[in-house]
Amino acid sequence: MPGGAPPDAGVAGGVRYARAAVLGVGLIGGSIAAALRTRGLAARVVGHSPGADAAEALRRGLVDEIADDAPDAVRGADLVVLAAPIPQLPALMSAIAPALAPGALLTDCASTKTGVVDAARAALGDAFARFVPAHPIAGSHARGAAAARADLVDGAWVVVCPHGRCDDDAVARIDALWQALGARTARMDAEAHDRLLGAISHWPHAVAFALSASLARGEFADAALRWAGGGLRDTTRVGASSPELWADILLENRDAVLDAAAAFAGEVQAIEVALRAGDRDALVECFGIASAWRERMPPRG
Amino acid sequence: MPGGAPPDAGVAGGVRYARAAVLGVGLIGGSIAAALRTRGLAARVVGHSPGADAAEALRRGLVDEIADDAPDAVRGADLVVLAAPIPQLPALMSAIAPALAPGALLTDCASTKTGVVDAARAALGDAFARFVPAHPIAGSHARGAAAARADLVDGAWVVVCPHGRCDDDAVARIDALWQALGARTARMDAEAHDRLLGAISHWPHAVAFALSASLARGEFADAALRWAGGGLRDTTRVGASSPELWADILLENRDAVLDAAAAFAGEVQAIEVALRAGDRDALVECFGIASAWRERMPPRG
Repeated sequence: MPGGAPPDAGVAGGVRYARAAVLGVGLIGGSIAAALRTRGLAARVVGHSPGADAAEALRRGLVDEIADDAPDAVRGADLVVLAAPIPQLPALMSAIAPALAPGALLTDCASTKTGVVDAARAALGDAFARFVPAHPIAGSHARGAAAARADLVDGAWVVVCPHGRCDDDAVARIDALWQALGARTARMDAEAHDRLLGAISHWPHAVAFALSASLARGEFADAALRWAGGGLRDTTRVGASSPELWADILLENRDAVLDAAAAFAGEVQAIEVALRAGDRDALVECFGIASAWRERMPPRG
Repeated sequence: MPGGAPPDAGVAGGVRYARAAVLGVGLIGGSIAAALRTRGLAARVVGHSPGADAAEALRRGLVDEIADDAPDAVRGADLVVLAAPIPQLPALMSAIAPALAPGALLTDCASTKTGVVDAARAALGDAFARFVPAHPIAGSHARGAAAARADLVDGAWVVVCPHGRCDDDAVARIDALWQALGARTARMDAEAHDRLLGAISHWPHAVAFALSASLARGEFADAALRWAGGGLRDTTRVGASSPELWADILLENRDAVLDAAAAFAGEVQAIEVALRAGDRDALVECFGIASAWRERMPPRG
């Protein structure tokens, strides 16, 4: 690789990036920036965030420097990681497109993929072929650069969702990058990804919000906090997640989420009907299907 | 205490029981039996279970001995801990009543209290005054004597629910017993307990069962197991609980559970309406109430 970084066995496909730009250095972006640094995958990591995360990311050493604006961050970067909230991505991509270096690779972290691919197609021009969408299935109810940690995606699944116009080489390199960050990668198309995630992540977050809200607004709001057992604690945990972030994810993936909601509502209604009727067999049948399924889930990690 | 066990500072109100009978040595009863032994609160711990838990409890040393039937277990016992499933309690109390030693103290572990108090009033005769209902808010999705552990109630809340005919001395001694087992105790009447637990434990378990069942019956049943992130994992965790145990708890506490279900259904429906309408503000408002409440929950333990 004349003029580039020296090949380096053990890092992303043998490539060490000269300058990685991470746009959005909150929980996810800040964690990826930190992992790029601690794993030696980029010689320099430049971050940008419009809010308070920028200063916090710099203070915590998640990034080498903070750029004043997004085009400055990506100028000269051979890797660009988009980690801003979903509603900001279209404008962000339009803003950086003219500043992208020829050959720069791009990936993102959004929890939904179809809309992001559409926005990238409209905004990125020739660079669209080097934009390889990805979704790290990692996170936390905690938020912001203050909660970022270099091992956030370590051991997590990252779904890589190449679109029809992706360069094969770009796909291979972005896949290798996520693996070098410690993740296990898998391939899925954007539509399949969004349907799956609507059912297994987005709607379950709505359930945790709904359960938390029903308690928060009820007569036992304070008592619940005091007496919470492990069941309530776990079932509501992601109800502490960012309201804005999750409103945007659910709206972005509305159709898949509503399908999952309908299936869930059917089970809830069946439980209520069985309870009113005193139908123990129906409850045991429903709970038995649930329990047999949940017991098959492998332990974390 | 002539003829009784010697006073022993540091154990239950200074009392060490001579013979504790634990009826039902599954997860909860087995754990309490083990704690009675390891904390030196009973000179001898005798267990009874109709099923396989009996042999497992003996094998694991959770109890000193297993009695062939419940009356044999309680004969000569100065402490009786009822830890059988709720539907078995009325018949169990009727069976042991004639065998109870004069002055024997009784407590239980059921997740609902009103029905248990009614059953005890009907079955226990004079011993009803020495039956002090209690509910350790501790448990696990794991089941049986194999999952029992001596520290299960250590640090957990135990709600002690004296009924109107309880001896004051019995209440004080049972309260001291639970504290000696490592728990924090609180007092509540049975009706207030059941309404509270319906909202903060029983219905949340139904939610986890419903979410698990909706995935188990859907097209993503296997994919969900493979790709589960932390949100799905926690939100469904107690969906792996015993179907029979939880069907009985929900039926026993039906009115309170249905009230909690109605409040929850209202939030779910509001989320669906907002999603269909693209009403981001409504979602952020609901999720914000949820999140602000959940963030106030103190860490476990």
